[in-house]
Amino acid sequence: MNVINNKEKFMKEALKQAKKAYDKLEVPVGAIIVKDGKIIAKAYNQKECKNDTTNHAEILAIKKASKKLNSWRLIDCDMYVTLEPCSMCAGALIQSRIRKVYIGALDEKTGACGSVLNLLEDYKFNHKVEIETGVLKDECENLLKDFFKTLRNLKKKG
Amino acid sequence: MNVINNKEKFMKEALKQAKKAYDKLEVPVGAIIVKDGKIIAKAYNQKECKNDTTNHAEILAIKKASKKLNSWRLIDCDMYVTLEPCSMCAGALIQSRIRKVYIGALDEKTGACGSVLNLLEDYKFNHKVEIETGVLKDECENLLKDFFKTLRNLKKKG
Repeated sequence: MNVINNKEKFMKEALKQAKKAYDKLEVPVGAIIVKDGKIIAKAYNQKECKNDTTNHAEILAIKKASKKLNSWRLIDCDMYVTLEPCSMCAGALIQSRIRKVYIGALDEKTGACGSVLNLLEDYKFNHKVEIETGVLKDECENLLKDFFKTLRNLKKKG
Repeated sequence: MNVINNKEKFMKEALKQAKKAYDKLEVPVGAIIVKDGKIIAKAYNQKECKNDTTNHAEILAIKKASKKLNSWRLIDCDMYVTLEPCSMCAGALIQSRIRKVYIGALDEKTGACGSVLNLLEDYKFNHKVEIETGVLKDECENLLKDFFKTLRNLKKKG
């Protein structure tokens, strides 16, 4: 399997996580962390169901990967995430020393990996995280659009 | 007790938390969250001992406060923190709708509340967090200086 297909394969896994969030009526965002070609952590947004705003998919994935590796330093690890990380999550990517983040949909309102600002590349922090955007962009965007449409319909009915 | 003394009183509580981190050889940062004049959450940095880079004092305090209030929205809550929050923690302050953050020492290398950048005031996110710096600045700075001196001495001996 070539590199391009691998990227899509891993983003599909992140999308599976996002769908788990959707099923719980959480904003559908999923993230996975890969090291040496293997998935070491999977997570989805659980902000509302756990009443904890730090429970974004990316933070939960970082916590799981750190536990798995028994280290807070996620050296040679890459994240695949269906939506561009916010400032909190981009900051966590820097803190955790993640090597690269692959992003599906962009977030023009809160995205901190190039949309509103670029925490990962534009500042002299002690670690820089590489960014690649547009991986399965349409699927990631469509899942979000579909979710917010569903949510509006539920509110109309409710 | 007037407002100025209250600020110092609360920062002293944050300093007590920071000292707990120091005792565990963690970078001494402490944070508390106050609502209606009462402390609803206290936390200190536990990054190394828990091998989790998301375990900054601020994140842990936000998690505790959310649990206490049974809500991720920390409306009318203020944070007192001994060191300027990094991007991850500043992002978490925005996400959690904290009203105001009182900061002790500044962090010129990673501070995201005015030092390296100002996430809380310079961007059009859906929430702005007020900032007040310099609360018990000397005590907060001295604790950090003392810690890093101790750490260097331990390394020399080790």
